[in-house]
Amino acid sequence: MFGVTVRDHMMVAHSFDGEVFGPAQRLHGATFVVDATFRGDTLDDDGILVDIGRAADELRSAVADLSYRNLDDEPEFAGTNTTTEVLAKHLADRLAERVRAGALGPSARVTGLVVTLHESHIAWASYERVP
Amino acid sequence: MFGVTVRDHMMVAHSFDGEVFGPAQRLHGATFVVDATFRGDTLDDDGILVDIGRAADELRSAVADLSYRNLDDEPEFAGTNTTTEVLAKHLADRLAERVRAGALGPSARVTGLVVTLHESHIAWASYERVP
Amino acid sequence: MFGVTVRDHMMVAHSFDGEVFGPAQRLHGATFVVDATFRGDTLDDDGILVDIGRAADELRSAVADLSYRNLDDEPEFAGTNTTTEVLAKHLADRLAERVRAGALGPSARVTGLVVTLHESHIAWASYERVP
Amino acid sequence: MFGVTVRDHMMVAHSFDGEVFGPAQRLHGATFVVDATFRGDTLDDDGILVDIGRAADELRSAVADLSYRNLDDEPEFAGTNTTTEVLAKHLADRLAERVRAGALGPSARVTGLVVTLHESHIAWASYERVP
Amino acid sequence: MFGVTVRDHMMVAHSFDGEVFGPAQRLHGATFVVDATFRGDTLDDDGILVDIGRAADELRSAVADLSYRNLDDEPEFAGTNTTTEVLAKHLADRLAERVRAGALGPSARVTGLVVTLHESHIAWASYERVP
Amino acid sequence: MFGVTVRDHMMVAHSFDGEVFGPAQRLHGATFVVDATFRGDTLDDDGILVDIGRAADELRSAVADLSYRNLDDEPEFAGTNTTTEVLAKHLADRLAERVRAGALGPSARVTGLVVTLHESHIAWASYERVP
Repeated sequence: MFGVTVRDHMMVAHSFDGEVFGPAQRLHGATFVVDATFRGDTLDDDGILVDIGRAADELRSAVADLSYRNLDDEPEFAGTNTTTEVLAKHLADRLAERVRAGALGPSARVTGLVVTLHESHIAWASYERVP
Repeated sequence: MFGVTVRDHMMVAHSFDGEVFGPAQRLHGATFVVDATFRGDTLDDDGILVDIGRAADELRSAVADLSYRNLDDEPEFAGTNTTTEVLAKHLADRLAERVRAGALGPSARVTGLVVTLHESHIAWASYERVP
Repeated sequence: MFGVTVRDHMMVAHSFDGEVFGPAQRLHGATFVVDATFRGDTLDDDGILVDIGRAADELRSAVADLSYRNLDDEPEFAGTNTTTEVLAKHLADRLAERVRAGALGPSARVTGLVVTLHESHIAWASYERVP
Repeated sequence: MFGVTVRDHMMVAHSFDGEVFGPAQRLHGATFVVDATFRGDTLDDDGILVDIGRAADELRSAVADLSYRNLDDEPEFAGTNTTTEVLAKHLADRLAERVRAGALGPSARVTGLVVTLHESHIAWASYERVP
Repeated sequence: MFGVTVRDHMMVAHSFDGEVFGPAQRLHGATFVVDATFRGDTLDDDGILVDIGRAADELRSAVADLSYRNLDDEPEFAGTNTTTEVLAKHLADRLAERVRAGALGPSARVTGLVVTLHESHIAWASYERVP
Repeated sequence: MFGVTVRDHMMVAHSFDGEVFGPAQRLHGATFVVDATFRGDTLDDDGILVDIGRAADELRSAVADLSYRNLDDEPEFAGTNTTTEVLAKHLADRLAERVRAGALGPSARVTGLVVTLHESHIAWASYERVP
């Protein structure tokens, strides 16, 4: 099983709804350092699982849509806490869609996808799925 | 599959019994930077797998019980080499017990647990289990 | 010359005023991983430059005052862009005051102070001053 | 499930054949920081999965065979692009052979092997297999 | 004194001339993770030392000129070993020229420049100069 | 001004004498990831400040003398708390001696020396001196 990972980041504002979040119920923000891992069992004739340049471009495009925004104002997250877990799933779902659309090459080769969001040097979250 | 990780550390002394350990048979010590990952398939209504604050508290409590100690003197490790592997399992077992006790919220949600101990910039060990 | 560094972090929202900031003019946010370095030429009789526990407490207290806040709403930053540089100076000034007040032990021993704020894996800023 | 990881590195030159590689078709090079993870369900009587010293020696030996070389000139890679994925598999296969030969102790104990090659701070690739 | 740092990387091939280099006399390569730090005593009215976007662009441009190349073939390095120290100086000189040309804003504000090249997880080199 | 840094590590046991140390008065231990930086204004004809291989060897030798030991039992530290600051100075003094003895090449070229000891992911200390 091969895995290829690319890293990018995004900087967002948001607040959380629920007592469990304590002071994070206030409007605050985060830098998320985002790792996207593509997995698969075979390489193509060039010896690659995915074109790492295209993988990086797709990740950049996915994080750019959220970057420098207040996620509380984004319609797609209305009624949802944009926790690290939720954002990891959001980005993984978005990349999965791109994989299925063939944006990274033959979609059949990528059989798994993991997105990890580092919110600080002491906490991170991830979401793993099949494309 | 979601994963949430929190990081803490502990500083301990110990020695190892067995020729395989070479100079590490002498009393020495280590800083272990400890990562605890909680895994599960679903989020609760707040959009979280575990309350990251409680996860951090539980990890801190688990490492605090070993911190600033000579593990050679701890009864619970009598007759056991406190290798990085053994300590990873010890902490994972301890956290699993807390998960089952509901300390991190509904235990059914956490279906996997990984504890990784970084002993230096070039070596680390982990233990993975179900709670 | 000795140096002792402790690390903590804070998560804030803010926006910037000025065309130079491009999309960062919008309300967004950041995790700042904050390193505070204390410098001095001599150690005390215990063999320390500063009590690392107190240094960590002072840093935690300084970042806690900004954590989980929208800095655009904080009176002390009114009319000021809370850039990484500005926040590094803010925290260094705050810690310098605490050093002078003796909160870290005899202030004469700490002759320099550096605060570094990591805003992502590819950018950070620092401010250095005498206490 | 236990895992033990050791880290080393190698510095190589190579070029890639195929338009997908863009400027990387030119002769260039890379530092690969290499992590080798050994996995298994049980520890031996010493409390270890593998002798970490022997694991480090085997990894060093494996990367030494490629270090400070132009991989384009190495017969074993003739006709193959030495991408990060290919090199991860090459090193994993090499280590698997050593595990099976008993070089790290009883081969039955190591039931999984992962090799990860970090090519920069924003990209890495891995290969996972059973020994 | 303020400092602002941006990070990028480059992947190059090269060889060294001189017995002191041992196996590195052979054609090999390296990934250099490059940090460029700009220093100065004052901020502009926007609260910044340098426009971090322009700083990142200038660094990217500087490393792009060397990326995916065999430095042994570059005329500007003829007769020179492209050691990590030499490349750090090369990039710092290049950035200093750009600072003086006003590419990062008023050159008077940047009074110091440091370029650090990480060649592996266990070795790096830097060069510091005034612009 | 050039700087060249090499990294190694050591694992030691020790205890501290003094109420300021709290639980660290008990016998415990630490992994110290040790960075040694050599500074100088000029390169030799090979384009290097120091032979990085010899620098790494000297650092390894210096840390090896302390590794896998209980520093409370080492005569050279009798009556001294082996704090991170003290150990940073100890290693810097040791390396300075080696520089002066010509072990890294012409001592005149190295005009500064910094040793940094990382005791965890959130704390480190350094000592800087002329050789």
